[in-house]
Amino acid sequence: MVKLKGFQKLTRTDKALEKWFNTLRIGKPDTEKVLLQEALGRVLAEDLVAPEDVPRFDKSAMDGYAIRSADLAGATQFKPAILKLTENAQVNENQAKQIWTGNPIPKGADAVIMLENTQQRDDKVEVWSQLAPGTNISRSGEDTKKDTTAAKAGVRLNPYHLGLAAAFGCTQLVVTKKPKIAIITTGNELAEVGTKRLEHQIFNSNKTMVAAMCRELGAEVADLGIARDKVEEIAKKIKEALQSSDAVITTGGTSVGGLDLVPDAVNGIGKPGVVVHGVALRPAMPTAVAVSENKPVVILSGNPVAAVIGFEVFGRALICRMLGMKQTELRPIVTARLTKRVTTALGRKNYVRVRVTQKNGELIAEPVSTKGSGSISTMTQSNGYLIVDENREGVSEGENVTIHMFAGVEAT
Amino acid sequence: MVKLKGFQKLTRTDKALEKWFNTLRIGKPDTEKVLLQEALGRVLAEDLVAPEDVPRFDKSAMDGYAIRSADLAGATQFKPAILKLTENAQVNENQAKQIWTGNPIPKGADAVIMLENTQQRDDKVEVWSQLAPGTNISRSGEDTKKDTTAAKAGVRLNPYHLGLAAAFGCTQLVVTKKPKIAIITTGNELAEVGTKRLEHQIFNSNKTMVAAMCRELGAEVADLGIARDKVEEIAKKIKEALQSSDAVITTGGTSVGGLDLVPDAVNGIGKPGVVVHGVALRPAMPTAVAVSENKPVVILSGNPVAAVIGFEVFGRALICRMLGMKQTELRPIVTARLTKRVTTALGRKNYVRVRVTQKNGELIAEPVSTKGSGSISTMTQSNGYLIVDENREGVSEGENVTIHMFAGVEAT
Repeated sequence: MVKLKGFQKLTRTDKALEKWFNTLRIGKPDTEKVLLQEALGRVLAEDLVAPEDVPRFDKSAMDGYAIRSADLAGATQFKPAILKLTENAQVNENQAKQIWTGNPIPKGADAVIMLENTQQRDDKVEVWSQLAPGTNISRSGEDTKKDTTAAKAGVRLNPYHLGLAAAFGCTQLVVTKKPKIAIITTGNELAEVGTKRLEHQIFNSNKTMVAAMCRELGAEVADLGIARDKVEEIAKKIKEALQSSDAVITTGGTSVGGLDLVPDAVNGIGKPGVVVHGVALRPAMPTAVAVSENKPVVILSGNPVAAVIGFEVFGRALICRMLGMKQTELRPIVTARLTKRVTTALGRKNYVRVRVTQKNGELIAEPVSTKGSGSISTMTQSNGYLIVDENREGVSEGENVTIHMFAGVEAT
Repeated sequence: MVKLKGFQKLTRTDKALEKWFNTLRIGKPDTEKVLLQEALGRVLAEDLVAPEDVPRFDKSAMDGYAIRSADLAGATQFKPAILKLTENAQVNENQAKQIWTGNPIPKGADAVIMLENTQQRDDKVEVWSQLAPGTNISRSGEDTKKDTTAAKAGVRLNPYHLGLAAAFGCTQLVVTKKPKIAIITTGNELAEVGTKRLEHQIFNSNKTMVAAMCRELGAEVADLGIARDKVEEIAKKIKEALQSSDAVITTGGTSVGGLDLVPDAVNGIGKPGVVVHGVALRPAMPTAVAVSENKPVVILSGNPVAAVIGFEVFGRALICRMLGMKQTELRPIVTARLTKRVTTALGRKNYVRVRVTQKNGELIAEPVSTKGSGSISTMTQSNGYLIVDENREGVSEGENVTIHMFAGVEAT
């Protein structure tokens, strides 16, 4: 007899995350040193602190001449100040020293006159304007003062962080280790891409998709292949995964009222097991989250779109935590005008796929047909989510809405 | 005598891009086959076309029983239809066959009743509701019909494209080759990170930053090191770069009215040489773009922020073209309220660095002090650009503005 249960009670996503993370208690991530040129997109593990003033000396912000501003008193185009060029380390009264952008300001000088406001004649230079002291000088420490925290632990490193680290003289940075996520896809109906399918089988697309979503966030992936629809086979693979990886993500074998092979397998391994099963999230209600041998397990639906949304909520939050980020990394958001009313289920958080385009400078969001929420093509036809909260039953046509983007906006 | 010139005429960024690309004529990019799991973030080189219907058979969208809808006529909770369970390939009158999500619909059946709306008793199942034909069936081709173009050449592949390709049975995808960009940093004041600096030297941060920006867009990088401030040395390195790479990016040695070592070096190599020098772009006026031996050369300022903005406009457009994208990939944009008036130069396109944060659900954009546009820290303190067009002299406090984001929005 099939175990029936339905979900008497669906858990809200925020409560589910809270309960899961309270049970899980993720520790400080392991760290490693990587070369600066390999640190792009990694997460900084230690605050980046300026070891010295940057720049470490007053330097010229322009190509021109280092001068003493007092010598230019009264200078105009009609009555230029005439200064004698020097090559010496020191600029004395009525002297000028040629200087290029980035060069240290020589002793005695207190300003730089731009080349275009001068005329060189033999060993002299004519200057046509007055200057306030300090003009065109970048002061030492102007970029970053010694001991300033320039980037905080937990930040994802972009090219500019790396540039600043280079300016500090860092050849390496301490980043958090990439968590290793084991992926197990379940289902008798699955055949691996590149193998021969049986009559009733389809190619395994969830593995490719979940792996790419993990990698996109900065995790490593271990592919544990397909488990057939048997609790023992699933449990064996999960145990293997818990041994070798930091977290496990499964797809399939969890349902709303049907077979729950994966939750049963996880519960069989030991306490606490499944923490939440059945989430007020559409599409992705059958999602479950668990803790097994102190490691996180995310049990995603076998329905590809539900797997994506379940990952979006639980996988994303998990990986960001494992990477040592201070909060779950938000997707870029845009404001767009909804072209068509969408109806959603009250009491559920709804992820509605939309296509945002730019028309005559205005951003519009068009809901992508939700017929067939199992269709991956609804993900490739859309570029963002309209997230409709639990307390709403829909969103009106013409409303300005916030869209969470997972691909670029195209101009049409 | 120093060659003076100033920029008699600055070229608008759109005109500069147009002139450059008209001179350049970038051909179709080379392509290569990569494994599906290595295709994330690459650019598709050939349309991805469905080789068959997906799904290729009618399948169940639910766990439940495959039934004949006619048999449920009049069924209610008080007067359930009672169907006999069968294990046969065919479902006959008043029969039901257990079915799991994704299983093919057996012959004879025309709908699936959800498990939770039934009760199994021995070899019979009670069904409590009527069903329209087709209920809970995913039709063959519902996701993607055979011969549909599911993704177009030029698209950057995300996890969902890869999932769809897997569903099609693709083990590999044809993507465009990563363009190889040679980076040359120029300046006597530069010392490589990890080496000993002389008294007047600073660490080379531009190389790290430009390389990371190239890699972020999907290009490969060849590091040609530092060229001293001599036209011959610079020209030698550029020639070497043109031999071994698809494009060259330099930093330093280009100015507004000062020394133009790099443009001079490029012009010395041959026609057409520098196409535009001096752009109505702030900060990044000294930027030049060139074509040498039929390859693109981007000549960026030595000022780190000007180098970043020059890259943002010219490097980004170039790499997207070389990757075979249909248009320059836009950064994600958000609408935010400007907290402080910004003043900009009329006739220039201005890139104002701002920090966007979320406060009580509202996005606000705070200009990051532009004192010291040479300061990389203004890039790490900000997360987006407010781009102010040539025809404006500033933007008022409180105005809702579009911000182009290069890092995430943080909630505060």
